Amino acid sequence: MDPMTAHTPHAQTIRQQARLGVLRGHTSGLAGDHVQGNLVILPKAHADDFARFCELNPKPCPVLGMAAPGDFAFPALGKDIDIRSDLPMYRVWRNGVLSEEVADIRHLWQDDWVSFVIGCSFSFESALMDAGIPLRHVQQGKNVPMFKTHVPTQSVGVFQGPMVVSMRPMKPADAIEAVQITARLPRVHGAPVHIGLPHDLGIADLMRPDYGDVTEVLPEELPVFWACGVTPQAVVQQAQLPMVITHAPGAMLVTDLLNHQLMSH
Amino acid sequence: MDPMTAHTPHAQTIRQQARLGVLRGHTSGLAGDHVQGNLVILPKAHADDFARFCELNPKPCPVLGMAAPGDFAFPALGKDIDIRSDLPMYRVWRNGVLSEEVADIRHLWQDDWVSFVIGCSFSFESALMDAGIPLRHVQQGKNVPMFKTHVPTQSVGVFQGPMVVSMRPMKPADAIEAVQITARLPRVHGAPVHIGLPHDLGIADLMRPDYGDVTEVLPEELPVFWACGVTPQAVVQQAQLPMVITHAPGAMLVTDLLNHQLMSH
Repeated sequence: MDPMTAHTPHAQTIRQQARLGVLRGHTSGLAGDHVQGNLVILPKAHADDFARFCELNPKPCPVLGMAAPGDFAFPALGKDIDIRSDLPMYRVWRNGVLSEEVADIRHLWQDDWVSFVIGCSFSFESALMDAGIPLRHVQQGKNVPMFKTHVPTQSVGVFQGPMVVSMRPMKPADAIEAVQITARLPRVHGAPVHIGLPHDLGIADLMRPDYGDVTEVLPEELPVFWACGVTPQAVVQQAQLPMVITHAPGAMLVTDLLNHQLMSH
Repeated sequence: MDPMTAHTPHAQTIRQQARLGVLRGHTSGLAGDHVQGNLVILPKAHADDFARFCELNPKPCPVLGMAAPGDFAFPALGKDIDIRSDLPMYRVWRNGVLSEEVADIRHLWQDDWVSFVIGCSFSFESALMDAGIPLRHVQQGKNVPMFKTHVPTQSVGVFQGPMVVSMRPMKPADAIEAVQITARLPRVHGAPVHIGLPHDLGIADLMRPDYGDVTEVLPEELPVFWACGVTPQAVVQQAQLPMVITHAPGAMLVTDLLNHQLMSH
């Protein structure tokens, strides 16, 4: 039995539980070696601009899959995916404001909606831990700290805004290895965008993240920054479209892909 | 004409000039894209230990070639190399003390001598500059600053001592790219061994290098440290063998290999 076959039923089970409404919380820690993805759904009128935005900003917005208008299947990402029900929890944004969290969006679905699945740091964190690099926020059971930077993304149409980064403290030797490992994972944010000098990114205080939880940086460590999947979420929110759907934080699409399949050689 | 053919006569010309005693100075800047190597020659009785030492410490001591006892040709590194005359200047060490600098060692040659050619940072510096990463010591026409660390090498027999590192100041984004580039060049020191926290290596003051020239680190830069070819030189010196030959600083063996041929994919 090859690894793909071995793992696929597991991913399908998670999606099935989400579809049935049994699973409504985080997928973190549930999905083993499976690639998880962020979700953005927006109307066709803006889909091409958003696709172009992702193309110009591949580090924060690495697209794993984009569906045709009205299409809710993603055969390249998993068997029988129904993007309207297979995530544990969704957020509905109206005019840029969070209006509701729902376990299912079938009742809201529009025929002109285009779904994007975007790579997520869970995959590279799994590769880092496999290499023996400790991740403090994982050890402490916390969410990774994230920061708005003053580094602009390349804007397209209504889509614009600063890059958001996640921060992981590491000893220098681990940081060097982490660069090499994540450079081989361009579909899940790739190599870090910055090491060591948060002020250069416009981050005034590492102990005050804009999203996620505070994580201490010890004296023998450097803060290592990766482009973060919160970037497209923030950009879409700022665009204030009449209606946009995203996953709820931590409640991701679990795909049939395995993390090591994303590794470029 | 392929690049190899195009460049080979040039390398041979440099070696020929060294052999004739016309070229007695640095090879830095003369060798274009050619791989340059450090030289260590020591008696057969210690050669296996030294080879093992290099094997256990590949980052400071990446062996490009090792000759059989008494052999002074290196066909894998270049056509008609005579290691006894083809470097511009040699250093003769007796009992660990520098006794003379000579342009030729044919008069000293012993049938039990074993020659090692060891990879040198000139190759990776060339790759970094090709990628548009500025190197301050090169721009300023200075030698790279080098520091003894408190990081021990793995010792074998009489060969032991601390790792010596070279330091290049870089902006964080350049440092991240430099990690990725040099990781693909394991035969010339590979990825950095450290970034950012010199005290962790036992380096008290970046403005006081143990070898080479002072190079300033600007506030928007991190010091990036690579294992350095001075390590085997220092280790061999400390072993206090009756006689050892090395290249004189900067007066390297210019090989027929091209830097890009060392790049692993």
